[in-house]
Amino acid sequence: MRSRIREYLREDIGSGDITSELVVPATQMAKGRVVAKETCVLAGAAEAAEVFHELGAKAVLKRKDGSYVEKGDVVMTVSGPARALLAGERLALNFIMRMSGIATVTRGLAEMCREVNPEVRVAATRKTVPGFREFEKRAVALGGGDPHRFGLDDSVLIKDNHIRIAGGVREALRRAKKSSFTKKVEIEVENEKDAFAALEAGADIVMLDNFPPAEAGRLYLALKKRRPDIVVEVSGGITPANIRGYAGAADIISVGWITHSVRSADFSMEMEKA
Amino acid sequence: MRSRIREYLREDIGSGDITSELVVPATQMAKGRVVAKETCVLAGAAEAAEVFHELGAKAVLKRKDGSYVEKGDVVMTVSGPARALLAGERLALNFIMRMSGIATVTRGLAEMCREVNPEVRVAATRKTVPGFREFEKRAVALGGGDPHRFGLDDSVLIKDNHIRIAGGVREALRRAKKSSFTKKVEIEVENEKDAFAALEAGADIVMLDNFPPAEAGRLYLALKKRRPDIVVEVSGGITPANIRGYAGAADIISVGWITHSVRSADFSMEMEKA
Amino acid sequence: MRSRIREYLREDIGSGDITSELVVPATQMAKGRVVAKETCVLAGAAEAAEVFHELGAKAVLKRKDGSYVEKGDVVMTVSGPARALLAGERLALNFIMRMSGIATVTRGLAEMCREVNPEVRVAATRKTVPGFREFEKRAVALGGGDPHRFGLDDSVLIKDNHIRIAGGVREALRRAKKSSFTKKVEIEVENEKDAFAALEAGADIVMLDNFPPAEAGRLYLALKKRRPDIVVEVSGGITPANIRGYAGAADIISVGWITHSVRSADFSMEMEKA
Amino acid sequence: MRSRIREYLREDIGSGDITSELVVPATQMAKGRVVAKETCVLAGAAEAAEVFHELGAKAVLKRKDGSYVEKGDVVMTVSGPARALLAGERLALNFIMRMSGIATVTRGLAEMCREVNPEVRVAATRKTVPGFREFEKRAVALGGGDPHRFGLDDSVLIKDNHIRIAGGVREALRRAKKSSFTKKVEIEVENEKDAFAALEAGADIVMLDNFPPAEAGRLYLALKKRRPDIVVEVSGGITPANIRGYAGAADIISVGWITHSVRSADFSMEMEKA
Amino acid sequence: MRSRIREYLREDIGSGDITSELVVPATQMAKGRVVAKETCVLAGAAEAAEVFHELGAKAVLKRKDGSYVEKGDVVMTVSGPARALLAGERLALNFIMRMSGIATVTRGLAEMCREVNPEVRVAATRKTVPGFREFEKRAVALGGGDPHRFGLDDSVLIKDNHIRIAGGVREALRRAKKSSFTKKVEIEVENEKDAFAALEAGADIVMLDNFPPAEAGRLYLALKKRRPDIVVEVSGGITPANIRGYAGAADIISVGWITHSVRSADFSMEMEKA
Amino acid sequence: MRSRIREYLREDIGSGDITSELVVPATQMAKGRVVAKETCVLAGAAEAAEVFHELGAKAVLKRKDGSYVEKGDVVMTVSGPARALLAGERLALNFIMRMSGIATVTRGLAEMCREVNPEVRVAATRKTVPGFREFEKRAVALGGGDPHRFGLDDSVLIKDNHIRIAGGVREALRRAKKSSFTKKVEIEVENEKDAFAALEAGADIVMLDNFPPAEAGRLYLALKKRRPDIVVEVSGGITPANIRGYAGAADIISVGWITHSVRSADFSMEMEKA
Repeated sequence: MRSRIREYLREDIGSGDITSELVVPATQMAKGRVVAKETCVLAGAAEAAEVFHELGAKAVLKRKDGSYVEKGDVVMTVSGPARALLAGERLALNFIMRMSGIATVTRGLAEMCREVNPEVRVAATRKTVPGFREFEKRAVALGGGDPHRFGLDDSVLIKDNHIRIAGGVREALRRAKKSSFTKKVEIEVENEKDAFAALEAGADIVMLDNFPPAEAGRLYLALKKRRPDIVVEVSGGITPANIRGYAGAADIISVGWITHSVRSADFSMEMEKA
Repeated sequence: MRSRIREYLREDIGSGDITSELVVPATQMAKGRVVAKETCVLAGAAEAAEVFHELGAKAVLKRKDGSYVEKGDVVMTVSGPARALLAGERLALNFIMRMSGIATVTRGLAEMCREVNPEVRVAATRKTVPGFREFEKRAVALGGGDPHRFGLDDSVLIKDNHIRIAGGVREALRRAKKSSFTKKVEIEVENEKDAFAALEAGADIVMLDNFPPAEAGRLYLALKKRRPDIVVEVSGGITPANIRGYAGAADIISVGWITHSVRSADFSMEMEKA
Repeated sequence: MRSRIREYLREDIGSGDITSELVVPATQMAKGRVVAKETCVLAGAAEAAEVFHELGAKAVLKRKDGSYVEKGDVVMTVSGPARALLAGERLALNFIMRMSGIATVTRGLAEMCREVNPEVRVAATRKTVPGFREFEKRAVALGGGDPHRFGLDDSVLIKDNHIRIAGGVREALRRAKKSSFTKKVEIEVENEKDAFAALEAGADIVMLDNFPPAEAGRLYLALKKRRPDIVVEVSGGITPANIRGYAGAADIISVGWITHSVRSADFSMEMEKA
Repeated sequence: MRSRIREYLREDIGSGDITSELVVPATQMAKGRVVAKETCVLAGAAEAAEVFHELGAKAVLKRKDGSYVEKGDVVMTVSGPARALLAGERLALNFIMRMSGIATVTRGLAEMCREVNPEVRVAATRKTVPGFREFEKRAVALGGGDPHRFGLDDSVLIKDNHIRIAGGVREALRRAKKSSFTKKVEIEVENEKDAFAALEAGADIVMLDNFPPAEAGRLYLALKKRRPDIVVEVSGGITPANIRGYAGAADIISVGWITHSVRSADFSMEMEKA
Repeated sequence: MRSRIREYLREDIGSGDITSELVVPATQMAKGRVVAKETCVLAGAAEAAEVFHELGAKAVLKRKDGSYVEKGDVVMTVSGPARALLAGERLALNFIMRMSGIATVTRGLAEMCREVNPEVRVAATRKTVPGFREFEKRAVALGGGDPHRFGLDDSVLIKDNHIRIAGGVREALRRAKKSSFTKKVEIEVENEKDAFAALEAGADIVMLDNFPPAEAGRLYLALKKRRPDIVVEVSGGITPANIRGYAGAADIISVGWITHSVRSADFSMEMEKA
Repeated sequence: MRSRIREYLREDIGSGDITSELVVPATQMAKGRVVAKETCVLAGAAEAAEVFHELGAKAVLKRKDGSYVEKGDVVMTVSGPARALLAGERLALNFIMRMSGIATVTRGLAEMCREVNPEVRVAATRKTVPGFREFEKRAVALGGGDPHRFGLDDSVLIKDNHIRIAGGVREALRRAKKSSFTKKVEIEVENEKDAFAALEAGADIVMLDNFPPAEAGRLYLALKKRRPDIVVEVSGGITPANIRGYAGAADIISVGWITHSVRSADFSMEMEKA
């Protein structure tokens, strides 16, 4: 985490914070508060604190990542050289705003789905912003979701393009079963026939891609009946508008939307001389 | 750009794409198409092509970044080792989807505002996703917006926290005017009095923060009358819902929303054996 | 792979190959052969070729990684600037010698075990040389072994120290089952009671740590009888001297010895002017 | 050293230690002991301590690198967050096990040779594991050996391939003597005639490559007689089985075997709640 | 700054300070003084202190960067492990000697020019030593100069080669005015006609390149008369020998000489056992 | 070399060459010439060419590094995308100007000294600009000088501060002689007594620090008489003004001045559309 935070600071600070160097004396101390501007699930506060630590300031968390905060809540206090607080302000807020946005919508979707099916999990995808995946996955987890694969080295997931090249579900799975025994093998299917072929060929997880909710639901029950230990994931075009329909149709609902199209939560930082 | 792309590939690929290594022969060649799934302003295609080049595949742009594309348009064709195409697919799409999302909404807002005031510019902020700013700024520019500052080393921007520490607008500007002659000096103000103080103290740009549209409009005219060469920026809580009201009230409208809360545009990649 | 190879070249070359710069003209071209000095399973030749490519020379593989080579076999030819060949020689050989050593012993152990139990797999551990794991795992795979986990982010493996802190096998597994659905959960046990507790608590894999072969064999059969889909791994103090005894007692035999105490295979490179 | 240790931690931890994050509470404190499982020369304990420091834990050395330890000896105690101890355990042990293996065998060979010739030094080569050379050289030094060149920028060493390209020993040395006056010049020779040619051409060190012990011994005496300040090194195929024969035949005996084919020493780490 | 300092330490220390490791015990503590050997403007002391901190020693500044120091003045005291002081000595002195050299000559030129024109600024250029620009710019600022652009991303500066390609001053400026509103636009001109064309086309800054002082002076007045807010820079072949002639002919005098041809100031460090 | 060049390009280009992106079309091709503006020894042209290659342009050397060039000589031609030429121009010239400055003065001093003593060598020191040492050492070599140590890992050099801590020349050398047999051992002395002590204690090189020329000369002869193979270096306060006096008093004259206080040679680059 620290090496990424340093890199993000370099991105924002570049050759120096020229405004603070001009306007704020090097010896000026200051304190500040990070305040929620709306109700949301807090995430990214640990990272924001690390930003200030990296710059030589002190940050004290007043709320825990993963908890609900209300408009006006102080989630963190900071103190130290005024220049350090000013240099870290934007990155700290960018962490909290985006990660809280992701955690909040994940929590909302997860709760919506659990009303229908208490066992179902809402999962992320790899549709994350390049360079920031580690933190988006963490935000999903803080929101009560499942982070899913972090990258291509994580577990085996055979997708449509793999199947087309391998020449079918069975052949793709036959090859994939040579993977390390430590890895689960998942396969994406587009119709019922392939789903059963995958089940029989020993897939650990079957992903139903772009199935309408009702069809997914029927197939889910049929697959579970045949092999109760199989894990069924639904995916493809799922949004807050239609997710509820999938809640009873899968063990896992993966939703790119929670990372690629999420609104940030609003936070601000207020400072004064110490 | 290349070093960032390599870093993003490391993020996604980690110690290896275990699925393709199992399922797809090393010598298998393939070709593919990146297809728009909705109408939008294309952005990120140049970066996506670079992703494939980095992996040893070939990519040919069929549409230019910055142009409108329609649902179903092929924006890029790719060819090369199947494993390279599979390894680059997600990162390439993540570039295009997010950057096109940003470019599209920027273009929309810019056009909306220019109907009212042909000279006004819609600008980005530093509310970008950590580690991806370079590309979000580029997407804003491709959408016809102004990228604004890339970082704290870029131009002088005195914000509320700076003013509080310096002890007022005049003193902050006095200090800031010692900056290199190559830098513009901008200051954020929260009321009319400070705006005029800033103007008189020689600010190049005055940012009206969180002013209602009508008030911003009146102040804009008054400032321009007093010093026609002053640049006036409005900022704070601007969204697609209220931006039009500011179009006649500023030279620049900066909108964090276009980077921190934007929806990705939808694209997919289809592959087959070559 | 390329970024690691560059880093290894930096390690060996530092500020420059002072000998070649003095003794060999910059324009001198040369060719060379990498020759096996003993019978072994070849590995690392792909990496060695990459070393020469990185330095601007050409390398042609004459034998495939994973195949047996005999004493005297030319496994690769190289050509290009003499200085490039000389600068890459040591790193190229270091790759091939160590990786072939690992692949050879892995192959030997795997074959020895498969005579007893054709389904059993010999697996590596994380007892690898720091900074070189990626290549040691690849060598194991080329030797017909299972690479096992690449790192701590790979799959869940609960070891003795985790269990002691969590307060027992059951509690540790209860917590671990909250992992992402994409991850397998393995647990290390030291006695029969814990093995059955792990099985009942839903572990995907049970690792029998430091069991004598006969005891491991009995327990293996008992566990498989109770839950045929459970995967049983044995580990701890396994060497070429005793591995055969475990071949019928597990699905997986993990052996730190094949990476931490392996002898390199012998190869050399001969060059002449081109 | 610190930047390498960070890199090795990244190699092992990747995006996170998922087991500990699930099984061990973030606030759980723990303590542990690193224990020798066999008699050996300790090395790598300083590095292992640094691993724990880097992760925010405390490590106290109980034995010094370079000293003999017995089976059962506690060489280091550690304390801090349980997750930090668990995350560092494997890397710390990998450092100690490999470096102690190297130091132990180096010490053994050095003592064996010094019985014959108290002035002779056992030296390492560049046949080290890529990315880990710094630590293997340190282990050799802790074992009482000479690290020899760290890399190609270190001192001038003209090998067979250089001589072939330069067109002979004399011409190669003539060119090499233009090196910076701060560098020693060594040359590898394969017969007596070349050895004397090297001596006359002003080599600082002559390496007798692949000479049988008796022949090396005769030549050593002859060279020393002609020029007492010349340093004579023997190299090529030297192992514990034959090294004693060279002890009286050289100033330096270089042995690739001590890094490329060494067995790790056995250590373990035991932890409990603090 | 810290990451650069680490990189510079790597450059100097490489795989280790072999002299100190041999000659100085690891536990030996020492103290030292950095002493000016000539009168100069001090710069680089903050960086030198950081060098010692990075190595685990303590450094206390006795003089402030930017102040005059006399021969014999102690500018910094250091204390800590003797090896740390020895490892940092050269880099620390290299910082102070070069940066003080630059600051001193900048101060001298600035004072010489201000006698003629109290408002004029002496500015640096991009003619800096690769990899050290950040510090050379800082030294210029400490000497009372203007750092000018840090790099090509900083402000718009249209030079002769740009104009030639764009097809003239007017066209180049027309294109450049599309830059972000946060950037100033400067253009280099070689004759009076182009200077006025630039002024009329809205350049913020006009750089008169290689004008003789008298000609520059006449043009300066003419440009200021036409547009008082225009900034005029002179550049090209300016040295201590001729700079005074330009003092009344510009707002800014940029001088490559102060970074590319400057003599270092002389400092030394004396150490003793603590 | 390539990784440093990339880093220097990042230093200069940052987030992008905003001027060229505005003023020069992406598809515009151009060609250019790098021209000497004064007579000097060329150095850095190879690096400059690499700068352009790195940016995707072509560069052809017209003069060889190390040769004399006259005012007006074209030393390199370049061609490719105009933006690439413009982005590389400054870094390329900074390489050539500084390195040629160093090579030229080194050549001048070396020739001046060789008139007196054909065997004497002029050597550099570690008083180089941080981050650029590799290239300054190369420039010294191109000028016919000896690069001396590249860093602290290179050869053993015992300086005044080491001696003071070790407690004398003899003790310092006794410890240093335990260095690897591949390293030379040099010691700095301040008086005749220490010089002879060093000679007797087996130093390979004795550096006479801050001796007046005549005294250095007498001591040089005395040392050589006692041990003809000893290498004598003089150092301390040597400049073009006094170097001639040392030419007969040493084997090596080391001169910090040639890197820390050197004037750059003047070069420029002219471009036009292709």
